[in-house]
Amino acid sequence: MDKTQKLKEDYPWIQTPLVVGAPMRLIALADMAVEISKAGGIGFIGAGTDVSDVRSHLDKATHLVESSSLATTTTANTLPLGIGFINWGADLSAAIALIGEYRPAAVWFFAPSSLSSLQTWATQTRAASPATKIWVQIGSVHEALDALASIQPDVLVVQGSDAGGHGLARSASLLTLLPEVDDAVGSGSRASSSSLSGPALVAAGGISDARGAAAALVLGAQGVCMGTRFLASPEANLSAGYRACVLRATDGGQATARTAVYDSLRGTPLWPHTHNARAILNASYWDHVAGLPLEENKALYQKDLASGDAGWAENGRMTAYAGSGVGLVRGVKGAGEIVGEVREGARGLLLGRG
Amino acid sequence: MDKTQKLKEDYPWIQTPLVVGAPMRLIALADMAVEISKAGGIGFIGAGTDVSDVRSHLDKATHLVESSSLATTTTANTLPLGIGFINWGADLSAAIALIGEYRPAAVWFFAPSSLSSLQTWATQTRAASPATKIWVQIGSVHEALDALASIQPDVLVVQGSDAGGHGLARSASLLTLLPEVDDAVGSGSRASSSSLSGPALVAAGGISDARGAAAALVLGAQGVCMGTRFLASPEANLSAGYRACVLRATDGGQATARTAVYDSLRGTPLWPHTHNARAILNASYWDHVAGLPLEENKALYQKDLASGDAGWAENGRMTAYAGSGVGLVRGVKGAGEIVGEVREGARGLLLGRG
Repeated sequence: MDKTQKLKEDYPWIQTPLVVGAPMRLIALADMAVEISKAGGIGFIGAGTDVSDVRSHLDKATHLVESSSLATTTTANTLPLGIGFINWGADLSAAIALIGEYRPAAVWFFAPSSLSSLQTWATQTRAASPATKIWVQIGSVHEALDALASIQPDVLVVQGSDAGGHGLARSASLLTLLPEVDDAVGSGSRASSSSLSGPALVAAGGISDARGAAAALVLGAQGVCMGTRFLASPEANLSAGYRACVLRATDGGQATARTAVYDSLRGTPLWPHTHNARAILNASYWDHVAGLPLEENKALYQKDLASGDAGWAENGRMTAYAGSGVGLVRGVKGAGEIVGEVREGARGLLLGRG
Repeated sequence: MDKTQKLKEDYPWIQTPLVVGAPMRLIALADMAVEISKAGGIGFIGAGTDVSDVRSHLDKATHLVESSSLATTTTANTLPLGIGFINWGADLSAAIALIGEYRPAAVWFFAPSSLSSLQTWATQTRAASPATKIWVQIGSVHEALDALASIQPDVLVVQGSDAGGHGLARSASLLTLLPEVDDAVGSGSRASSSSLSGPALVAAGGISDARGAAAALVLGAQGVCMGTRFLASPEANLSAGYRACVLRATDGGQATARTAVYDSLRGTPLWPHTHNARAILNASYWDHVAGLPLEENKALYQKDLASGDAGWAENGRMTAYAGSGVGLVRGVKGAGEIVGEVREGARGLLLGRG
């Protein structure tokens, strides 16, 4: 059994190549997660650092699943979607209680405060819901090997530097990170890809369409994860201003950058200094680069908070996390349609080369 | 005729998918360029900002070509290799004289001081050697469109953020840059790839082996360019210490970063602020991050200059430009062997998916 077959066994409703929806905090909730799973992908609810609202999202997702075709395709009585936690901030006992009660097919761990904390999360998850698979997001070979040695995750989410939102400040793109991780954790460049050794690899960061997905598969991934692309779906829980900002952005490597300035402005400075976030560059960013003191920049940000969607307009100051693939996001499409388009498009590109 | 056929017509000695050797300043000279072309790729001599030594390299390359199988495969009487210029620093009239005299099959332009300067270089090159094809390195969609509108280059070298050495400070990887450029300059994601409209795209930055090459081809490139990988070939003109440093580095996104600090230390601050360079992180970098004043850091660098190969040891201060793919470079191999391995490996990966 190869890794792809193993994925199909663990998540029997999926179609391959696997397309995953990133657990975007506040944005990827029940609607998006269920739509993605219904389309043969794996959707994740973004709990992030705050677990307090997650029960309501899981209740809604359960209801949506029960009234869909998904209800009949799951094994082990799991909920056919995942929950994503930012471990340094999420409440462990509240999270474990939810995992035990709702039995998601997968949990996605990211940025634990330490390896021993990661081990605690994994041990307690497995005790609370043995059928729940554990995914760990990593941004370096070092992190991949640490995660592997500590908790033997089922899936490594390999996040490259193009990703929107938070990740390692110093990073490579999937182009080099994915093959180097693949070599390090077992499959290797010349080893048989039908080996079951090592976790499945899901590529994240810079995948916006079928071309990026096909590239990630050729680089060694068994599945691909998208976040930014799903921002332009009706199922994304975000303001019209944010969505318009995403659709407006072109030349993604110029329109976005990795920076810690938005965390500072928003008063979310609890991220470790090893991490920052990629977002669309706006007036806050340019003022920061021009030397405006943080307190003044913060005041301008606070003032803009009241302006609603206009805060994401050309001269706005609201943060729009997005990856460098934002320039490839050109229209609104249903999350399920996106899943199918990327999956079939990637398959076609790879077959077309034969 | 599609773009790949056009490449074969313009460079009749090549085999496809095309593998190109980057014009690494001081490192990619006659030996490397000719070996790469002999193996069915296109080798470039790195003139960089200083044209004064290039005549000797071209004389040597001419001699090597004449005593090889390449001598019989060229058309239009061109030298079957290219010369790479960093236009803001290179002497125009000296360069044009060499181009007219030696008729390289291609010239590679990078970082002109302005678009009108780029136009001058292109016009004079075409006058001096009509058969010489013009390649322009770009790092954004904006630069690609500017180059296209200004001089209609034969090839756009699309450089992503993983690249070693100099490039745009703010940048995306090839994963998103290449498809967005492809869409912008003509081929498009859904348009036929057999269209001749627009220049051929050669992908650079983060390609170290067949996997990266195959990914770049799937993303829309007609050819791939490598620099870092060739550092570990006997044909690279670099010190044993530099080469050892490259072979030692692992976890490429952690071992390297884009920074301007090495330019400051080395006294090459003439690069515009839009550009910086990716290199292996060393004591100079960490001291800089820790707050050591530049003058003190410079003094330590100057002292280390005298230590030869030891300057690239674990605690050394010599600069080793390298891309994030450096962790995939694990042994020394002939430049020609690398070309064949990557070309055939990429072909196999793409066929293997069929």
